[in-house]
Amino acid sequence: MLEHFKVPSDIAVKVPVDKLRVATEAVFRKCGVPDKEAKLGADVLMFADQHGIDTHGVSNMLRSYVSGYNSGLLNPDPVFSIVKETASTALVDGGGGLGLMTTPKAMEIAIEKAKESGSGIVSIRNSGHLGAAGYHAMMAVESDMIGWCMTAGGKSMIPTFGAEAQLGTNPIAFAAPADKEPAFMFDAAMTSIAGNKIGLANRLGRPLGAGWVANEDGTPNMEGGAASSFAANSLRAQLPLGSTRELGSHKGYGLGVMVDILCGQLSFAPGFATLDLSRRAHFVAAYSVDAFGSVAEFKRNMDGMLKGLRETKPMPGHDRVYYAGLPEYEEAIKRNKYGVPLHPEVIDWFRSISAEFEIPFDLV
Amino acid sequence: MLEHFKVPSDIAVKVPVDKLRVATEAVFRKCGVPDKEAKLGADVLMFADQHGIDTHGVSNMLRSYVSGYNSGLLNPDPVFSIVKETASTALVDGGGGLGLMTTPKAMEIAIEKAKESGSGIVSIRNSGHLGAAGYHAMMAVESDMIGWCMTAGGKSMIPTFGAEAQLGTNPIAFAAPADKEPAFMFDAAMTSIAGNKIGLANRLGRPLGAGWVANEDGTPNMEGGAASSFAANSLRAQLPLGSTRELGSHKGYGLGVMVDILCGQLSFAPGFATLDLSRRAHFVAAYSVDAFGSVAEFKRNMDGMLKGLRETKPMPGHDRVYYAGLPEYEEAIKRNKYGVPLHPEVIDWFRSISAEFEIPFDLV
Repeated sequence: MLEHFKVPSDIAVKVPVDKLRVATEAVFRKCGVPDKEAKLGADVLMFADQHGIDTHGVSNMLRSYVSGYNSGLLNPDPVFSIVKETASTALVDGGGGLGLMTTPKAMEIAIEKAKESGSGIVSIRNSGHLGAAGYHAMMAVESDMIGWCMTAGGKSMIPTFGAEAQLGTNPIAFAAPADKEPAFMFDAAMTSIAGNKIGLANRLGRPLGAGWVANEDGTPNMEGGAASSFAANSLRAQLPLGSTRELGSHKGYGLGVMVDILCGQLSFAPGFATLDLSRRAHFVAAYSVDAFGSVAEFKRNMDGMLKGLRETKPMPGHDRVYYAGLPEYEEAIKRNKYGVPLHPEVIDWFRSISAEFEIPFDLV
Repeated sequence: MLEHFKVPSDIAVKVPVDKLRVATEAVFRKCGVPDKEAKLGADVLMFADQHGIDTHGVSNMLRSYVSGYNSGLLNPDPVFSIVKETASTALVDGGGGLGLMTTPKAMEIAIEKAKESGSGIVSIRNSGHLGAAGYHAMMAVESDMIGWCMTAGGKSMIPTFGAEAQLGTNPIAFAAPADKEPAFMFDAAMTSIAGNKIGLANRLGRPLGAGWVANEDGTPNMEGGAASSFAANSLRAQLPLGSTRELGSHKGYGLGVMVDILCGQLSFAPGFATLDLSRRAHFVAAYSVDAFGSVAEFKRNMDGMLKGLRETKPMPGHDRVYYAGLPEYEEAIKRNKYGVPLHPEVIDWFRSISAEFEIPFDLV
């Protein structure tokens, strides 16, 4: 995680993961979510908060989920159904539930199909926000498989040469198991920066970086500056990964469209044919390593590659090279020991929602 | 294609595709490639030259293939074998053949499996360069499927914070069918620019752009400049898509590792466990649209999305917004009519190789 986005340590309140989990489960239950689902949803949020993926933890997301349940946008107890399936594929309907809970169910189907047929490819429509996509990809890793997870929806990303947003931030997560090395876990928006990071920068009063968003007329802003100097709708003017055509923004844009196709078009999700992306759609896949060869050998080979990558000679000004998943793994060790650093404002929110929902407040 | 890379029109020699195809097939045959394979290899090269993907057409690639056959690095008549398979997966060994010919065979297997099981996932080891990855992804589109193709190998990309190359340029190709709109066809290296474009810039005497390569010490060069001002090994100092950590280079790097895993690790290819990436490995996949729902409806929906994207309001200085595959489609219409613009130096090479191989020279 960039220093930029950390809650300043002098004001951060460190909350033990178990306490945060209990409080989160209680909030979900009070929204009408059945106990088992409440636990699952909290587990996805805890994954983000443990691993330092603060953009997708309780701070940024839980209150929007509560408001989704309250407004009726989200169904707390949805009917999850398989619309169509083959030996290695399925299209599922999330019944309007939160993606935090519908996506693990879809990934379970993908993993079962991969056990039988080598791979499982599942597209998901009619579902809400899925949290940190890496959680779902990592489910496959637990079964010695390679896992994918993507999600599409919203209007945040401006196509290369365009002046208006036409796509969501459309993250791609991909995970693969290793033996002694922490698993490879990639999870990144196909905009130059995750949308939630712009929200977080706004909340923490940090400047927006060069190449993150477009100017009012759609041209890429390559200077950055105080959030207040940008259009209020800067969350809907994000640049694709690559920022400008010269730096490769058509690649971030193209990958974003790919995510739209796998999530929205392959699931025949309403709205995606007309770029009316108010609803979300997802995609998960699992490839069984065993279908290709020895799992033990694969993991040993992965260890060799990942170790080689983190032992890359660093450039001046840096003492380490990472691979995706390594910083998150190290952060989880710290946070499991010392707690999740939350902004006091988040603690206040928990205090007030606990009073409103008449549930115990026991975070601090 | 960026203007930057075009052969200057005042010196370009326009060669009809059919003549270029005949000449290319003849060169392959003289290298010992059987007739059917020679036709297939030429078809992959013609696809690149027709679609304006000049980095992967005859100009840049054919002489390196000839030298590969001459040196014994490539087997002109390899044994292609399935090492392991399940209902929806296969690991294939290319027998040391050129990827131009081994990859379509692997994609045929993926398509057959997808017809039976919904999806087909195939990793390929022991194979040479595969040309334009988009060709192989588009094979799936011809069968009303979504297609993937990736390839890994070589040392070109420097990991974020690193000072030495550890990965290839590791392109991802992805294609999906539409009805009246040209198909979506994405094909891009996970470095900020395709390696061959640096070679092409060198050959045409054009400057290198900002954010393409690292300085000698590994720090990202964000100024660009004359190719001569960079280290001679700039092809082995390419920056990941995103160029700097602040602009998201960890995303291009992470996607590059993902490609390495799907191509090299999943195929148990020699060298990939130790980052000795002198050999290449590939990955293809096909997802049957029919396995998820109506093909006709999917294509209509794709039309709506692609039309919506190209009708995006453009930013100042641009009159159109594209989607991946659209510029290539339009270029192919032109080149099929007017011929492929080749540098006179390429014509000279064909003239001399024709004399050496004792085959007719009939390009101009």
